[in-house]
Amino acid sequence: MSGNRGVIYQGPGEVEVTDIAYPEFELKDGPGVNPANVGRKVPHGAIVKVVATNICGSDQHMVRGRTTAPAGLVLGHEITGEVVEAGPGVEFVKEGDLVSVPFNISCGRCRNCKARRTEICLNVNPDRPGSAYGYVDMGGWVGGQAQYVLVPYADWNLLVFPDRARAMDKIMDLTMLSDIFPTGYHGCVSAGVGVGSTVYIAGAGPVGLAAAASAQLLGAAVVIVGDLNAERLAQARGFGCETIDISQGNPAELIEQLLGTPAVDCAVDAVGFEAHGTGSDAGREAPASVLNTAMDVTRAGGAIGIPGLYVTGDPGAVDDAAKEGSLSIRFGLGWAKSHAFYTGQCPVMKYHRELMMAILYEKVHIADAVNAVAIPLEDAARGYQEFDRGAAKKYVLDPNGYLGTG
Amino acid sequence: MSGNRGVIYQGPGEVEVTDIAYPEFELKDGPGVNPANVGRKVPHGAIVKVVATNICGSDQHMVRGRTTAPAGLVLGHEITGEVVEAGPGVEFVKEGDLVSVPFNISCGRCRNCKARRTEICLNVNPDRPGSAYGYVDMGGWVGGQAQYVLVPYADWNLLVFPDRARAMDKIMDLTMLSDIFPTGYHGCVSAGVGVGSTVYIAGAGPVGLAAAASAQLLGAAVVIVGDLNAERLAQARGFGCETIDISQGNPAELIEQLLGTPAVDCAVDAVGFEAHGTGSDAGREAPASVLNTAMDVTRAGGAIGIPGLYVTGDPGAVDDAAKEGSLSIRFGLGWAKSHAFYTGQCPVMKYHRELMMAILYEKVHIADAVNAVAIPLEDAARGYQEFDRGAAKKYVLDPNGYLGTG
Amino acid sequence: MSGNRGVIYQGPGEVEVTDIAYPEFELKDGPGVNPANVGRKVPHGAIVKVVATNICGSDQHMVRGRTTAPAGLVLGHEITGEVVEAGPGVEFVKEGDLVSVPFNISCGRCRNCKARRTEICLNVNPDRPGSAYGYVDMGGWVGGQAQYVLVPYADWNLLVFPDRARAMDKIMDLTMLSDIFPTGYHGCVSAGVGVGSTVYIAGAGPVGLAAAASAQLLGAAVVIVGDLNAERLAQARGFGCETIDISQGNPAELIEQLLGTPAVDCAVDAVGFEAHGTGSDAGREAPASVLNTAMDVTRAGGAIGIPGLYVTGDPGAVDDAAKEGSLSIRFGLGWAKSHAFYTGQCPVMKYHRELMMAILYEKVHIADAVNAVAIPLEDAARGYQEFDRGAAKKYVLDPNGYLGTG
Amino acid sequence: MSGNRGVIYQGPGEVEVTDIAYPEFELKDGPGVNPANVGRKVPHGAIVKVVATNICGSDQHMVRGRTTAPAGLVLGHEITGEVVEAGPGVEFVKEGDLVSVPFNISCGRCRNCKARRTEICLNVNPDRPGSAYGYVDMGGWVGGQAQYVLVPYADWNLLVFPDRARAMDKIMDLTMLSDIFPTGYHGCVSAGVGVGSTVYIAGAGPVGLAAAASAQLLGAAVVIVGDLNAERLAQARGFGCETIDISQGNPAELIEQLLGTPAVDCAVDAVGFEAHGTGSDAGREAPASVLNTAMDVTRAGGAIGIPGLYVTGDPGAVDDAAKEGSLSIRFGLGWAKSHAFYTGQCPVMKYHRELMMAILYEKVHIADAVNAVAIPLEDAARGYQEFDRGAAKKYVLDPNGYLGTG
Repeated sequence: MSGNRGVIYQGPGEVEVTDIAYPEFELKDGPGVNPANVGRKVPHGAIVKVVATNICGSDQHMVRGRTTAPAGLVLGHEITGEVVEAGPGVEFVKEGDLVSVPFNISCGRCRNCKARRTEICLNVNPDRPGSAYGYVDMGGWVGGQAQYVLVPYADWNLLVFPDRARAMDKIMDLTMLSDIFPTGYHGCVSAGVGVGSTVYIAGAGPVGLAAAASAQLLGAAVVIVGDLNAERLAQARGFGCETIDISQGNPAELIEQLLGTPAVDCAVDAVGFEAHGTGSDAGREAPASVLNTAMDVTRAGGAIGIPGLYVTGDPGAVDDAAKEGSLSIRFGLGWAKSHAFYTGQCPVMKYHRELMMAILYEKVHIADAVNAVAIPLEDAARGYQEFDRGAAKKYVLDPNGYLGTG
Repeated sequence: MSGNRGVIYQGPGEVEVTDIAYPEFELKDGPGVNPANVGRKVPHGAIVKVVATNICGSDQHMVRGRTTAPAGLVLGHEITGEVVEAGPGVEFVKEGDLVSVPFNISCGRCRNCKARRTEICLNVNPDRPGSAYGYVDMGGWVGGQAQYVLVPYADWNLLVFPDRARAMDKIMDLTMLSDIFPTGYHGCVSAGVGVGSTVYIAGAGPVGLAAAASAQLLGAAVVIVGDLNAERLAQARGFGCETIDISQGNPAELIEQLLGTPAVDCAVDAVGFEAHGTGSDAGREAPASVLNTAMDVTRAGGAIGIPGLYVTGDPGAVDDAAKEGSLSIRFGLGWAKSHAFYTGQCPVMKYHRELMMAILYEKVHIADAVNAVAIPLEDAARGYQEFDRGAAKKYVLDPNGYLGTG
Repeated sequence: MSGNRGVIYQGPGEVEVTDIAYPEFELKDGPGVNPANVGRKVPHGAIVKVVATNICGSDQHMVRGRTTAPAGLVLGHEITGEVVEAGPGVEFVKEGDLVSVPFNISCGRCRNCKARRTEICLNVNPDRPGSAYGYVDMGGWVGGQAQYVLVPYADWNLLVFPDRARAMDKIMDLTMLSDIFPTGYHGCVSAGVGVGSTVYIAGAGPVGLAAAASAQLLGAAVVIVGDLNAERLAQARGFGCETIDISQGNPAELIEQLLGTPAVDCAVDAVGFEAHGTGSDAGREAPASVLNTAMDVTRAGGAIGIPGLYVTGDPGAVDDAAKEGSLSIRFGLGWAKSHAFYTGQCPVMKYHRELMMAILYEKVHIADAVNAVAIPLEDAARGYQEFDRGAAKKYVLDPNGYLGTG
Repeated sequence: MSGNRGVIYQGPGEVEVTDIAYPEFELKDGPGVNPANVGRKVPHGAIVKVVATNICGSDQHMVRGRTTAPAGLVLGHEITGEVVEAGPGVEFVKEGDLVSVPFNISCGRCRNCKARRTEICLNVNPDRPGSAYGYVDMGGWVGGQAQYVLVPYADWNLLVFPDRARAMDKIMDLTMLSDIFPTGYHGCVSAGVGVGSTVYIAGAGPVGLAAAASAQLLGAAVVIVGDLNAERLAQARGFGCETIDISQGNPAELIEQLLGTPAVDCAVDAVGFEAHGTGSDAGREAPASVLNTAMDVTRAGGAIGIPGLYVTGDPGAVDDAAKEGSLSIRFGLGWAKSHAFYTGQCPVMKYHRELMMAILYEKVHIADAVNAVAIPLEDAARGYQEFDRGAAKKYVLDPNGYLGTG
């Protein structure tokens, strides 16, 4: 048996790369593992040698100490790799397959999975519907910012790339299939983005940039990205987006300067609960700000896709209501405009195959759009820090040298 | 030219039946008429002699003084009648046609109308998308709780009943096509109600009862209606619904007693911004209460249809945020459950034809479900009062004696 | 180990009940088993003790000798039963569970299954996408008109009834969930049947009657069933359908007599390739007759659902083209009316849960609609014969005495 | 009043440009005008000075003598122009507006128009649902290959370009909005083309090329165009399509050479009833050939969009069945693969606004894709001849010099 190294959350602001256990076909006890999941047999699992695993903005919520994540948690839910061992119950996935792992773990047997709602699988997390690798309150499945990781229900969860060499050529793009590309795309699809749409994307972090690239892929006429971070806005302009700096004024007015009308057809909230205000309030955390802006700038009859994370409890929030996940939303405005709102995790499996095809046939350059950079696994702490400081980069960890970083 | 009588809003708590002007093919100045609409020519309109016109819960918002409606406004947007004169630009609708009038006025020429979004027509209300008869801030189109009313864009707006005699036999049902039946149905369709669904309807007023009847028509397995009003709950039970009295405890627990699980597939908010709390808070106005309950009781992956009215400003609200239409919503809960939220007026035209067919072929008995009672137009004030006191009735005014009340 | 008895196809017109092998967790060689499937391990399977198993019209195609089915084939794909043994790879389904088995076998791991297209699963039939129990050219999975049957991928395929006693009370209804109820329902859903629709169902056999009951459940205003068989038409009238005897004239004219217009909104072909002509041609086999009638009677813009089976080869067909599955279709007529056509097996899993709910909450009485009658397994040959002679009955075999026939 | 010149069908193979009547707000008698439409008042119409009007493949069916079109018919249904006079019943469209005219004439008042099915409008053609300018059996509305044309129901039908100068810059693209761009796009949308799809387009004429460009706009991974005409195939390769020459072998095999699998996700029939065989049968007219190929090459579960025209009667057909519009279709093959088939005219209004946006924001270059060339109106006969001989061009007539040809 090989050894294994992984990225560990050690407390607010602190991550470390340490030795961790090599995966077995069983979910062992450990930090953050739900007691009801301890000892769970996973004959349907596959052990994946990680080719690429990305740092996600939602990892940062934990690392910033905005959650109840326990110290010792192995992080990482954006995983691409090679199958090195298939469990005894695996029938179709084979050793050597190069695969993308959806960040949401799902069983492929429950009512929700059968309805393509893998983001709320009923059988993998004893706490509530839905799960993910290496995440607080998600059942305790071990994270994948590591050399090796266990993927349960492998025949169901894994997307096998059809041609290994061709896939390795595009690996920096394909690694985005595990989370942010489908997540941004889901935000757009939910918001009704299609051919000829005008679209506002709130947030120019990796999910926002992925949403912007998705909107282009879906045929949008204009994609406008809003943020406070000049470097990230420049990144968005780099692949053909329009941008607005929301510290410079009212978003509707800034949009009007671009479109001649203060409204877009569709909006995507790629920020979530750690939102800040706009204009002169841009420095202040204002959890409902993005939602209220979205209603303001979306035309009557439009829809708002909300892949940005909102939480049921936020101990570090600015006020008591927000601590319980309650936000002061201008709901009357949305109602008057007949808006529809779509929330929740992206069901990655619903989209990853078609997005893989778009990558393989070069219809989208998602790695460029999010400015993906590979760094060695051992440099994970640096990646977390730079990302937290707002670098316009998507950090891809390289635990086994496939990406040539080390 | 005939005379005309209509129901006038005279100030908080006060309505009166007075002489009003007989309609012409022009929108004249008057209380609540947007200046930009004054003098607008309506050659495409038809003058309708009213057969039945219902008092609506949203009329009550005005009559209770919860809006900026001016004194002198002619009320009424639920209209069924007979065409007595077609304007010079009308081609297909003919004198003598018995018709249903959608409460939302629309032009049939704009981008939104062409996309079946008649509830947000761009050409009829200078203030914002969407309009209605006899309603504050809706452009100033004269209300239809009257003997005669002008219907603009008659060829587009009117639904002609195929057989006059057969329609008169079902007139108390067909009168619900102008608003509450499609409105309740839209709430259900938005919420994803279909064959085999379990459904929670918040509110047992006429829209809630219409939503409940709609859910049954759509094939729901169980329809649970929640309210505080015992008489209205009894009405719901009268046509096969389950009910919960939300003053008696937590709605999720009450639902669990009925279903064996504390969750439904779909929820409909048929209450809106004048909501009250549940359990021991049942006596207190709590504008976000219904929305928060809906998120609590709807299963992960479910949707919430919100035909209940939320407003952009509510001078009579319980707190400053609510006065601006801002509500403290447990958005994190909805997000964790991947909920979708559908708001806004119902686009009546999208549904009224199919619901007419269901009425004519006796697949639904909507008048019975909402307990429709006809009263003379001259008794309108009494109807408003009884309805405001919570009578489990839907009041249908009979301005011209077709319903045999006078 | 118990013994096992099953219904065997012995040659044109001949079925027999004989001893057959008790299922193991492996697909053994036998008549009709695809060589590539021989020896396939099925640790994910469950052995089901059959509670009810129905004779299907598509079984008759084989028994009439219209296919290449080999002698010795164990028949039966409409199966409801009790799990008596779960394979080592089964995690959620348990011994004692009362279950419905979708007639289409699917793996729950391939691209099509993940997209809810279980009728064209890629992993169960080496010949082509899609499979079924006990059917020619479907991979060789052993049929379920037997005491015991093996269900592969049990966690994926099986629908577990939530309450055993309550399910046994409705067992004659629930047994229709394995095929004909979802199949008829799928035809209606495909054809766009909804609230207020007018619908034509071609064929009053069990699938046609199930389609008619489905149309009612979906809220159709009028359901018209057409056939040549007076007894079956009387059965349709028995639950509120209108009927036309297509030997009595042109279907469009007969429909006009009922509706006042010669057109319906939606049509369902519940007959398939063994169709006969209409009017004076009613006695003659005319394979395109139902499709051409459907185009004739469906209004412009309507859709046609085609659950009735059409085959790629029909050695017993009336002409050479039909022998190759080519039919002379009035395609220009359909095109001029902008028709849409939906073909193929029903993906049962997409619908069976919601239909189960409708049965359990008594929103539909499907056993009455199709006139289900239970007979002992040993009387299967009689059931086949009576059904082939046009009895207006759906024969349910009772292999283990649960239905009280023996 | 100005004069007017237009293109007249004079008999098989013959078109001529002659003086024709200047439009009035009434439909006058003339060749091909349905008697019930003669004298019809059109106060809702607008007189359009034609900026660009294209020759369409469906015009060729008439000119080749494959229809019952009468001599003297003014041709042309692909119209873009400038409003020079709005009728008395027109409210929103104004003199000077630059507009696209959908080829399908619709009323904006009937059940079908309200459901976005403008291709089967009930009020414009006394013969059957649906209409078009300058076309046989379509009601008799005068064609638009002319200097001036009357557009009925102008507020409903016309798409006004938002900025005149910007529109004139893209006029060769925007002229494709009246028919072939939406028609090709509709074929793709019907066939389920989306991000990552593999697509087969049968036919490299202008509609086929427009479908190919549409598939790219919708995010398809690979677009394969099949035809016999080398010049047209080269045109398709010119904007990034793959191509197959169907005279060179079996289309499935040719597709396999490109994709590694003999199947695509989606197919579009952009040919219609004048189809030819494939491989060694390529020289022979074979009306069902494209449909049968489409079923052969489309994967199980795929859909087939059929914008190519099929007719109810074809006096020049190769056999008696085809003369009545009956084709020998391998329906059993489609059924075994669960195919869906979508037929009929494209409802242009459903798509033209979003496609206009895609053009204005340069997300598609449709004029380049179809190789649009402007020629003077007076050269129409030459355009018809060259197009009929298979030129890989889309001929755009310039009746008033806006395009600078004269």
